[in-house]
Amino acid sequence: MKIEGKEYRTIWFDKKSKVVKIIDQTKLPHQFIIKDLKTVKDAVNAIKTMEVRGAPLIGGTAAYGLVLALIENNDQTFLKNSCMELINSRPTAINLKWAVDRMMKKLSGINSNEILNIAINAAKEICEEDVKFCKNIGINGLKIIEEIYNKKKDTVNILTHCNAGWLATIDWGTATSPIYHAHKKGIPVHVWADETRPRNQGANLTSYELNEEEIPNTIIADNTGGILMQRGEVDMCIVGTDRTIATGDVANKIGTYLKALAAKDNNVPFYVALPSSTIDWETTDFKNIPIEERNSEELSHVEGLDENNNIKKVLIYPKKSKAMNLAFDVTPAKYVTGLITEKGVCEASREGLKKLFK
Amino acid sequence: MKIEGKEYRTIWFDKKSKVVKIIDQTKLPHQFIIKDLKTVKDAVNAIKTMEVRGAPLIGGTAAYGLVLALIENNDQTFLKNSCMELINSRPTAINLKWAVDRMMKKLSGINSNEILNIAINAAKEICEEDVKFCKNIGINGLKIIEEIYNKKKDTVNILTHCNAGWLATIDWGTATSPIYHAHKKGIPVHVWADETRPRNQGANLTSYELNEEEIPNTIIADNTGGILMQRGEVDMCIVGTDRTIATGDVANKIGTYLKALAAKDNNVPFYVALPSSTIDWETTDFKNIPIEERNSEELSHVEGLDENNNIKKVLIYPKKSKAMNLAFDVTPAKYVTGLITEKGVCEASREGLKKLFK
Repeated sequence: MKIEGKEYRTIWFDKKSKVVKIIDQTKLPHQFIIKDLKTVKDAVNAIKTMEVRGAPLIGGTAAYGLVLALIENNDQTFLKNSCMELINSRPTAINLKWAVDRMMKKLSGINSNEILNIAINAAKEICEEDVKFCKNIGINGLKIIEEIYNKKKDTVNILTHCNAGWLATIDWGTATSPIYHAHKKGIPVHVWADETRPRNQGANLTSYELNEEEIPNTIIADNTGGILMQRGEVDMCIVGTDRTIATGDVANKIGTYLKALAAKDNNVPFYVALPSSTIDWETTDFKNIPIEERNSEELSHVEGLDENNNIKKVLIYPKKSKAMNLAFDVTPAKYVTGLITEKGVCEASREGLKKLFK
Repeated sequence: MKIEGKEYRTIWFDKKSKVVKIIDQTKLPHQFIIKDLKTVKDAVNAIKTMEVRGAPLIGGTAAYGLVLALIENNDQTFLKNSCMELINSRPTAINLKWAVDRMMKKLSGINSNEILNIAINAAKEICEEDVKFCKNIGINGLKIIEEIYNKKKDTVNILTHCNAGWLATIDWGTATSPIYHAHKKGIPVHVWADETRPRNQGANLTSYELNEEEIPNTIIADNTGGILMQRGEVDMCIVGTDRTIATGDVANKIGTYLKALAAKDNNVPFYVALPSSTIDWETTDFKNIPIEERNSEELSHVEGLDENNNIKKVLIYPKKSKAMNLAFDVTPAKYVTGLITEKGVCEASREGLKKLFK
């Protein structure tokens, strides 16, 4: 999708310099910086510090991380350790394990000079597949938006939480893909972008990317969605997910669950958009999903532009206070109207998922 | 209650200098500044800019605002205009109208030299009554905390939203009063303080005042309460209210409704604490409660301490983005376990309210 009019993807491999290029998302929206990842450590670090984030994109980064590992050191032990480091770089999204497992299947038993090229192609394939899946999510979700528009004959107001936009994937996004498709088809849409504390990805990334694609959007505090739904100002919600378990329960950015409850209470359809790479078929109890706890500085300190356009970090909490920073919550399947996947829309349940993907 | 070990109230009249003294709450937690209000315009401005905030405290400020009006100009038209300006300084809390009406009842027909003293005493009476009512709210709410403690035999975890602390009233607070009473009785309590975007009163004021009274507390993003309840880490919620209507529905700081939904979904008791001055007996449909929309700069800009301990304001949103800033939402009575008032705890319903206050 576009930034300042130019088409980008969130990650790509530069064959000439043998580095992986990413958009450093910790610098958005105030600076647009393309960063080089030269080693597997760089890739792990980019995932940990959230220079790249979003379940599909960190999957892609893990895949390219193994490419970087192979460039550094063709030794099996090093490769295995790199796999573990990538898988453990963040706990909640299942895509890390999924991407690493898929890469290792392709690489196992290959010791030839060809291994690097095979790895590059496999990583590229994972990314290309994600683009295709996200595009299909868009096509499938578009039908839902279209239906609402055909009834309402007026701008469709869509609430989203955090960033499940193209910046969270390789291109198109998950939750945003139906929105981009609707916009391209001329259906008037307006997005309520939840700010999404503490890291404000809804403002910094979702509103930013929607602005760049000229889709009308308004940032709101995370507290605001409830009253907007009470007032009928939200026609549907679409969010992404970091892990959908076998029962249809979805882990997503902290606060998603609260919006799902409000949607239920006000009869607003609540959809979750996901490529099948985020499905965790093994887990059947949402209490077993590991919920990441991040540094409380993400809450107590905020970065922004001062009056001279310089980036400043400020402490916003009382000096004596402590804070706690859980990154995800779980929305039980019963609050999810449907899962929008690359294969179609299904009920958020074991049966629903099985029908589309056995 | 205490700040740096010294007892304060949030507002008082200095007879010698004939000014009203307030704690400027826009400067907390980084600066503690006592500010003089010298004119009714100062009082209106203090309410509008939220130097004073919280339904009971802005009621008290409106009362003292009329004292300042009388000192300025003993003319009836000026007094009437001042009443209107004070009532209209903020729309959602009912206490402004309540306090002004009560003052004017005492002042009507009095043209003597005594009018100023009568006004001073009437304003003082409103504030003293609020202190007494908040204290009684504490005594009544303490029983609920005690019951939980007697069952659990371990620290009682209480979630609160925004600041319904002593800083929102004259002393004790509404939601915090049961907590202060429990703490004084030796019951171990821990407070989850919702940050409360956009103005962060949960962090800047609630956590701040709890720190000063040495009550254990942790600031969390507004998004976090849901998963904490799913995990059993919240024993009860207590919030304040800016307006309780005749049906028991409560308007409170934006986001309260979302926590009430999560509490219901997880069988966590959800209490609303209020002095009767916040009851609006005339309104019977919550859709008729005026919901304040404030400047979107409160969302897009954040103030804090930089690395040199200087206060800096920074822009945190993309420059092209717009934002929308609703200040309150409404929690339907069916999600409220009970109303904790100065007269006792009642069901959030017309019948419940009538039993206590016919």
